[in-house]
Amino acid sequence: MPDPNKLTVPDHPILDCLSQRYSPYAYEPKPIEPDKLRALLEAARWSASSFNEQPWRFVLATRDDETAWQAALGCLVEANQQWAQHAGALILTLAKTNFTYNDAPNRVAIHDVGLAAGNLSAQATALGLHVHQMAGIDGDAVRSTYDVPEGFEPVTAIAIGYAADAEPDDKPRTRKPLSEWVFGGTFGQTHPLV
Amino acid sequence: MPDPNKLTVPDHPILDCLSQRYSPYAYEPKPIEPDKLRALLEAARWSASSFNEQPWRFVLATRDDETAWQAALGCLVEANQQWAQHAGALILTLAKTNFTYNDAPNRVAIHDVGLAAGNLSAQATALGLHVHQMAGIDGDAVRSTYDVPEGFEPVTAIAIGYAADAEPDDKPRTRKPLSEWVFGGTFGQTHPLV
Repeated sequence: MPDPNKLTVPDHPILDCLSQRYSPYAYEPKPIEPDKLRALLEAARWSASSFNEQPWRFVLATRDDETAWQAALGCLVEANQQWAQHAGALILTLAKTNFTYNDAPNRVAIHDVGLAAGNLSAQATALGLHVHQMAGIDGDAVRSTYDVPEGFEPVTAIAIGYAADAEPDDKPRTRKPLSEWVFGGTFGQTHPLV
Repeated sequence: MPDPNKLTVPDHPILDCLSQRYSPYAYEPKPIEPDKLRALLEAARWSASSFNEQPWRFVLATRDDETAWQAALGCLVEANQQWAQHAGALILTLAKTNFTYNDAPNRVAIHDVGLAAGNLSAQATALGLHVHQMAGIDGDAVRSTYDVPEGFEPVTAIAIGYAADAEPDDKPRTRKPLSEWVFGGTFGQTHPLV
């Protein structure tokens, strides 16, 4: 069960799969059902992308496969290994840096990896799972561990699991108000709608 | 009403707010309710980001404000202006390129803008709206139109509206199968789960 301290009350009503999301540092020692993992991946699959390039690539490891698990954990920075080792699954995300149709650089490749990760995250929350995304990876370790070819760039890692009842990070979730980042007319000038 | 030809039947069950999403080129001439726009922005607000930086900045224009509308449209490449002029609202997204806490480059800033845009997109679909994201913007026009300061980078534009019954792009939605991009062991080797 997620930590009730992490519940968010948005200023405007939004979907539960968005408001109930948070990034746990503690997980139940419970494997993730394969059907649920497939649903998470399928959610990512249907994301939007520039020219429908689908620049995302995922390397998946589950905790029940000890060799694969240690390989994936070894691609995280030390501080992330400490807590992520207790998750149920890890995904290393990569971006194809150039478009397939003309080999030109795809300026939004990692943006579109973010879109796919967002879909995955919403689906996870809807299925009672939580995800914790990390920029703190060792890109060189990803490249060497998985023999990543030229043209693909490691982006993030995503830990997936059942959130523990008590979350070590007990600070409430906070965000800037809309007035600080939704502009109209000029950059920095709050849009009257918010 | 969305074009029924654009309905997606996923291989594994996923949320309606993800499967019913597509990127329309045609919109009903109907304004977007301000409460719905606020819900979309609130959904973006609660997205994850590295160090909770929230690097996203949005410039919002609605079609009922003619001056603001033309200014925003002028930041799109010509081909996108043609269809996006009929949407109900436009958002230009920008990323804060460096972290606020230490001024170091934020490698995942535009990835995290993508996460926020994904939340917005899911919320829009749940509210009967559709969004069409574009990488095809004129970054210099964004900078000059809105007097964007150093440290912020134009990323995408997002058209928002009520999808028309008949969608000019009548091709069905397609995606690579999971087996082409979900790997285990080595990059390029399909994970047995999929």
